[in-house]
Amino acid sequence: MKPKPEESSQTPPPWDETRVIGERVPRVDAYERVSGSATYTLDLTFPDMLHAVILRCPHAHARVKNVDTSRAERMPGVHAVLTKAEPEASLPWYFQGDRPTSALFDSHCRYAGDEVAAVAAEDPYQAREAARAIQVDYEVLPFVVEFEKALDPGAPRIHDSGNQVKDTNISERGDIEAGLAEADVVLEETFETPCELHTPMETFVSIARWDGDELTVWDSSQGVFAEQEALARYFRLPLSSVRVISRYMGGGFGSKLDLGKYTVIAALLARTTGRSVKLALSREESFLSEGNRPANRITLKAGIKKDGTLTALHGVFLGPVGAYPESSTSAFLLRDLYLCPNVRTEETDVYINAGKARPMRAPGFPSCAWALEQMMDALAERIGMDPVELRLKNIPDVSQTFGNQPYTSTGLKQCLTEGAAAFGWDAARKRARKTGPICRGVGMAAAMWGYPGEPRSTIIIKLLADGSANLNMGAADIGTGTKTVMAMVVAEELGVPLDRIQIEYADTGTTQYAPVSGGSQTVLASAPAVRAAALEVKHQILEIASAELQRPASELVLVDGRVTPKDDPDGGMLLSGLKGLQQRQVLVGVGRRDPFPEGKVPLPFAAQFAEVEVNTRTGETRVVRLVAAHDSGRVMNRLTYENQVFGGMTMGIGFGLTEQRVLDPQTGRVVNANWHDYKIPTALDVPAENTCLPIDPHDKECNTAGVKGLGEPATIPTAAAIANAFYHATGIRITRSPMTPRQVLEGLAPHRTRS
Amino acid sequence: MKPKPEESSQTPPPWDETRVIGERVPRVDAYERVSGSATYTLDLTFPDMLHAVILRCPHAHARVKNVDTSRAERMPGVHAVLTKAEPEASLPWYFQGDRPTSALFDSHCRYAGDEVAAVAAEDPYQAREAARAIQVDYEVLPFVVEFEKALDPGAPRIHDSGNQVKDTNISERGDIEAGLAEADVVLEETFETPCELHTPMETFVSIARWDGDELTVWDSSQGVFAEQEALARYFRLPLSSVRVISRYMGGGFGSKLDLGKYTVIAALLARTTGRSVKLALSREESFLSEGNRPANRITLKAGIKKDGTLTALHGVFLGPVGAYPESSTSAFLLRDLYLCPNVRTEETDVYINAGKARPMRAPGFPSCAWALEQMMDALAERIGMDPVELRLKNIPDVSQTFGNQPYTSTGLKQCLTEGAAAFGWDAARKRARKTGPICRGVGMAAAMWGYPGEPRSTIIIKLLADGSANLNMGAADIGTGTKTVMAMVVAEELGVPLDRIQIEYADTGTTQYAPVSGGSQTVLASAPAVRAAALEVKHQILEIASAELQRPASELVLVDGRVTPKDDPDGGMLLSGLKGLQQRQVLVGVGRRDPFPEGKVPLPFAAQFAEVEVNTRTGETRVVRLVAAHDSGRVMNRLTYENQVFGGMTMGIGFGLTEQRVLDPQTGRVVNANWHDYKIPTALDVPAENTCLPIDPHDKECNTAGVKGLGEPATIPTAAAIANAFYHATGIRITRSPMTPRQVLEGLAPHRTRS
Repeated sequence: MKPKPEESSQTPPPWDETRVIGERVPRVDAYERVSGSATYTLDLTFPDMLHAVILRCPHAHARVKNVDTSRAERMPGVHAVLTKAEPEASLPWYFQGDRPTSALFDSHCRYAGDEVAAVAAEDPYQAREAARAIQVDYEVLPFVVEFEKALDPGAPRIHDSGNQVKDTNISERGDIEAGLAEADVVLEETFETPCELHTPMETFVSIARWDGDELTVWDSSQGVFAEQEALARYFRLPLSSVRVISRYMGGGFGSKLDLGKYTVIAALLARTTGRSVKLALSREESFLSEGNRPANRITLKAGIKKDGTLTALHGVFLGPVGAYPESSTSAFLLRDLYLCPNVRTEETDVYINAGKARPMRAPGFPSCAWALEQMMDALAERIGMDPVELRLKNIPDVSQTFGNQPYTSTGLKQCLTEGAAAFGWDAARKRARKTGPICRGVGMAAAMWGYPGEPRSTIIIKLLADGSANLNMGAADIGTGTKTVMAMVVAEELGVPLDRIQIEYADTGTTQYAPVSGGSQTVLASAPAVRAAALEVKHQILEIASAELQRPASELVLVDGRVTPKDDPDGGMLLSGLKGLQQRQVLVGVGRRDPFPEGKVPLPFAAQFAEVEVNTRTGETRVVRLVAAHDSGRVMNRLTYENQVFGGMTMGIGFGLTEQRVLDPQTGRVVNANWHDYKIPTALDVPAENTCLPIDPHDKECNTAGVKGLGEPATIPTAAAIANAFYHATGIRITRSPMTPRQVLEGLAPHRTRS
Repeated sequence: MKPKPEESSQTPPPWDETRVIGERVPRVDAYERVSGSATYTLDLTFPDMLHAVILRCPHAHARVKNVDTSRAERMPGVHAVLTKAEPEASLPWYFQGDRPTSALFDSHCRYAGDEVAAVAAEDPYQAREAARAIQVDYEVLPFVVEFEKALDPGAPRIHDSGNQVKDTNISERGDIEAGLAEADVVLEETFETPCELHTPMETFVSIARWDGDELTVWDSSQGVFAEQEALARYFRLPLSSVRVISRYMGGGFGSKLDLGKYTVIAALLARTTGRSVKLALSREESFLSEGNRPANRITLKAGIKKDGTLTALHGVFLGPVGAYPESSTSAFLLRDLYLCPNVRTEETDVYINAGKARPMRAPGFPSCAWALEQMMDALAERIGMDPVELRLKNIPDVSQTFGNQPYTSTGLKQCLTEGAAAFGWDAARKRARKTGPICRGVGMAAAMWGYPGEPRSTIIIKLLADGSANLNMGAADIGTGTKTVMAMVVAEELGVPLDRIQIEYADTGTTQYAPVSGGSQTVLASAPAVRAAALEVKHQILEIASAELQRPASELVLVDGRVTPKDDPDGGMLLSGLKGLQQRQVLVGVGRRDPFPEGKVPLPFAAQFAEVEVNTRTGETRVVRLVAAHDSGRVMNRLTYENQVFGGMTMGIGFGLTEQRVLDPQTGRVVNANWHDYKIPTALDVPAENTCLPIDPHDKECNTAGVKGLGEPATIPTAAAIANAFYHATGIRITRSPMTPRQVLEGLAPHRTRS
C-alpha cells in the first residue's frame, strides 16, 4: 500500500558523467555573505529582546561562599539576575559517562572563566554593569595549570576523583618489544604541541524565546538537531517543543558542536523574564571558556629496518582536558596511517585549572601528525631513504583499526607520488639551501582521517510549479559551502539551474535530522541523501513527462529546466509545462543516506609538501610554498574544495608557527585572550604559491556520491610538513610547536656556531 | 523502484471510530494568542527596517497631472519616494481577463483612496509627514458613487470601456414564463443589501526584504502560495526566489486572498533602499481600499403552486464592483438551494468611484439569501404553509448547477427538522408576540454553499526520535483553528498527544503548496492530505514495530505515544523505544489530498432559526436567540466548529442590522471609515442563547476525512432569518438591510396606526 521506508535509500549507481558536479561554482549565497545582508545570529534582534551577560570567576580555582545580587538587581534596566539559587541553574552539567562532574552554576569554580551568575537587562552595557555589581565571596584555592604537573602528588585536586580524567587508554597490537628488537634503527623523541584556540570569526551567541512551554533558540551552531536534543533533555521537553535555528554561521571548527552553557543561561533568563534574551559572548570570553585544542606531549619510540619496514611504534600521550571531561589526544594516526605490526599507544587525560577542551578540526590528529611525521622524517634520514619513499613503502592496504577491513579506496599512493611530482620534490630536496642567514628547505607529511561519518540524514526536495526547486536539509552550513554543494546535486539530477533552487536548512522546526556539521561528514552524510531525494523527484517527473510526451521515461533527460528526449535535444518541454505538475503544484521527494558499505572502510588520505625559509638571525619561519594532494573522493565543487584545503593549511600554519594559548603560572589566567596577543595567520602569512591537487580514486563504494571527508584532513599534516622543511633547511629539529621566533632561536642556539 | 506519486493519495477508508477527532479541543496556540506572545506580522521588526506610507488620491475621480516629490525627498528620515516614474511602479494591475484595467500607480485615479505615491522613511511618522509633503496636481473629474446611477447615459465614465464591467451574465434553465404561468401565486419584490466592509482585527501589513534577486515577504495573508505566485509574476522571478510567510493572522474574511498593492509597494521600496520595508495600512486605509462586500439590488419574481411546489424563480441582480473588476453578485442559491425547474438569473456588475470589492465570506450568498429566503417566507405565508414545511418540500436531491449530479450527502432535511425541533419552532411561531411597543417574533432561513474546494494540497509529517511529531502544511491559519484541527488528525492516526506536535505552516520556503484559506476549503483540502501523510508515517512505524515486537502490523495500534498490541493494551512500547526510529532519527510521510468523488458533488447545507425583539418606538431590533443547524460533514473539533458558526452568525447580525459603508454623494468619499461610525456587532449584540447543532450525515464519499466546508455557510442565512423573524414580529417586511433603527422606523411609519 505505501512506499516502504527502505525504498528511498535504494542505492543508485554512482555518477559516471556529471554536468554540474566537479565544476568551479561560486557560493550560492556569495552575494548575501559579501554584501552584508546575510543574517548571522548576532544580527538578529527582536522588539522585546533583553541582553544577558555572564559573571565569570576571576580565579583559577575557588569556591563560591556567597553571592549577593541585591545591588545588581536594583540597577537600571536589569530584569533578572540568575544564580545557582534558581533550581534549574544548578542542574548537572559536564558529564563523565553518566556521572555529572559539575553544575551549570557550580560553587566549585575550576578555572578563571567559570560561570557564576548572569544578568539580563535592557541593553548589553547595563547587563555588564550589573554583572560587575554582583558581589561574590570567593574562597581562593591553590591551582594547577601546567598539565605536566597535574598528576604530581601535591597538585591541587580539581575533581574529587582526582586529576586524571579516567584510566589511561592503552591500545596494543602485536608485540611492541619484539618489534623494537627486530628493528635496525630505534629512535625516541618527545614532541609537544600547544593549546590552540578555536577562533571562529563569529563568536558565540544565542537568542532564546519561550512561548508557554515551547522554546525557540537561534544559535550559531554546527548541529541544530544535536542541540535540540540536548536542550530537550535539560529542560525535560519533547523534541517538538524545542526549535533550534542556525542560519548564516561564521565558523565553529568544533567549538559549536555541543550545547553551550550560555545557551541554557539565555533560555533560563528568557523564561524568568518572559522576554527574548540574547547572550553574545565577547571574544575574550570565547577564548577563556568555549573550547580549545589541548596541548599534547607525545613520547614516541619507533623501530625500523634498513629497508624501510616499520617494526614498532610506541606512543605515550599526555594531554590536559581543562577543568572538565573531554578527550585530549588521538593516537589513531599512529595505529593506522602506516602498516606496522607492533603498535602500542597509551593516552592519558588530565584536568587542569583552565577552560575546557573541545573537539577542534581533526581533534588530536595534527598533534599526532606533528610527532609521527617528524619521526618518519628522522627515520628516513637515519636509514638514508627519501621521506616520500619511506611512506610509499608503508602504505596500509587495510584499516588496521577497523578489523583489517579493506578501504573502499585509498589514494595515499597517488597523493604521495603525484603530490611529489607537482611539488618538484626530488629537485627541491637537492637545491642549495642557504643564503646568508636565510635557510631554505622542503619537507612533507602524510595524513588520513579516522571518522567515516554518521549514516543518518534525511533530505526533502520539492519541484515547484514553475520548474524551480526547494532543497530542505537539516545540515548547518558552517561556512564551508554546504548549501552550494547540495544545490549542485539537485541541479545535477533535476537539471534545475542553481539560481532556481531555494534552500531551507538547519532549523529543527522546518527541516529534518542531519548529523552535526563536523567530523568531515557533512558532504558524505547529506550528498547521498540529497541525491536519493532528487532521484525520487526525477522519477515522478519522468513518469509524468513520459505520459505527456508519449515517450518511455528511459529516453528522457532533464537539462536546463526542461525534460527532453535524448535523441531530440531541441524537443521536449519546460518542466513548468507538465500538466501533471500543474495539477499537483509540487512534487516531493524524500531521500535518506545510503547504507554504509559492508565490510569496507571509507576514509580519506592526504599528503602535503611545504617549502620554508628560515631567518636564523630573527628566528622567523616563512612558508614559501605548499602543495596539498588529497584523496577525499569525488570533488563536488572544485572551488569550495580548494577553499577547504587552503583554509585547513592556513590553520596548520598557525598550529605550526604562531598559535598558542598562554596560561600565566602565577595567576592561572589566560594572558593572551585577544586577537592581538593570540596570533592566527593572516593573509601575509599564507604563501602565494599554493597548489591544491585533488586525487579522485573514483570510489564507487564509499557512498552513492563517491565522497569522503575533506575538512579535517586538510589541516592534519601541514604543521609537520613545515617542521620537516625547517629541519631540511636548518638541520635542527624543533619538537615543540609553535615554532615561534623565540622557540626557533632557542632551538638554534646550541648550533649557533654553525651560522 | 520508487514510490509512485499516486500512491500517497490512495484513498483510505473513512474513519468509523475516532479518539480525538470530534472532541472539544482548545486551540493548540491558545496560550500564545491570549498571552500576546503570538507574533503577528505587525509585531515583526528588523534592525534595518524602514516604514512606508502610501499617498492616496483624496478625490473620488481625478487625473494626476504632476507629482512633485522634491520637498518630500529632503525631509528628515526619508530614504525613498516612489511614484509612477519608476517603471516597475507603473506596471499593469487589476485585470479584466488578461486585459489590465489599471496600473500599480495610475494617473487615472478612480476613487478616493487610489494609490498615487509612497514614501519609505526611518519611522512611520516621518513617512507620513513626507507623504503629505508630496505635491500632486490633480484634474478633478465628475464621479458616480451610487451604483444604481452608474449606467445612466450621462454618468462619468470610470473606464474607457464604460461602466458596465462585462456583459450581463444570464443563466436560464427551463422556461421562466411557463413556470410563472403555471403558478398559483406569483410574488415580485426588490431587495437591497448594503456594502459591508471586511473588518479583520488585524489590518493589512507587509514587510519586504531583498537579498540580491531574492524577495522575502512577511504578510498577513490567507494564502502564501497564491501570493508567492503573484509576486513572482509581477517581478518576473522564479517561485524559488520568492518567499512569502504568514504566521499568526488576525482574520481576512476574503480581503487577504489576493496580492495587495501595498505589498508590491513595500517590495519596490525595499529594493530601492536596500533595506527591509514595513508597510502597515491604517484602519481608515483598509476601509477605503482593501475590499468590501458590494451592495446588491436583487429583483426577485417567484411562482409557486398552492401545494408548495416552486414553479419559477427569476432574479435580476445589480451590484457595483467599485472602481476595478470583480464580481458583485452570486445567483447560486437561486439556482441551487431549492428544486425548481424554471430559473432565470441576470447578473450585472457596474463600476463606481469607490474602493474595489473583494470576495467576502461567501461572496454574494448572504445577499442572495436575503432576497430568496425572505421571498420563501412571503410565499409560505401566501399559500398558508409553514416556512419550514415549504423548504422541506423543495429540498434538492441533485446539484442543479453541476449537471444534476447527486450530492455525496445532503443533510438539509435534518438541518430543517432537527433545527426546528431544537428551536421549538412550532410553539414559538404560535406564541403571543406583543408587549407594549416590544414585538417578538421568530423566523428562519436555509442555505447552502457552492464551492467544493480545490483538490491540490500536499502535507509532510515527521515522527521525531522521541516520538513527538512535526506537521508541515502550507495552509494559513487565518484564526479559524486550522492548526488545531490538522494536529488532531495527526494525533488521531499516530497516537501522538497534541502537545507533542510541532506545526510549521504558511511559509512558501519551508512548507508546500496548499490552496488559499478561503472558500471554506481549508479543512477539506488539508485534512485528507494530513491523514494521507500520517498514514504513510503510521505504515512505517508499524513496519518497524512489527519486526521489533514480533507481531503482525495488523495487531498493533498507536495510542498515547505508544505502539501496543490490540490484545495487550499494557504491552508494547513507547515510539521512542523503536530501534528503527533511532536508527533513522526521523520518519517522513508525504500525503496529498484524495481525488474528488467522481460523478458526485460535495457541498454543505444549513438552516438557521432566529428570535428577535423589535422596539417599535425606537426602531431597535435585538436578536434574542439563534439556533444554527449545519451539515458541513464531520465535526473535526466541536469547539472550533462552534466558534465558526457563532462567528458566522455574528457577522450575519452585522449584515442584517448594523453594517454599511456610507459614501457621501456630495464628495464621493467614505464618511464612516472608522470603527466608531462603521458599526460591527459587539458582544452585547450577540444573543446569549446560541445553539450550534451539527448535523453529521456520515458522508463517506466527499473525501477521506468526511468534511465539507463550514466557514461560509455559517454566515449566509443569518440576516434573512432575522428579517423573517422581524416580519413575524411586526408584520412588516424590511427589504433593505441593514435594518438600522432609522430603516426600521421608516419601514414601520406607514403602519404606525397599528401600534
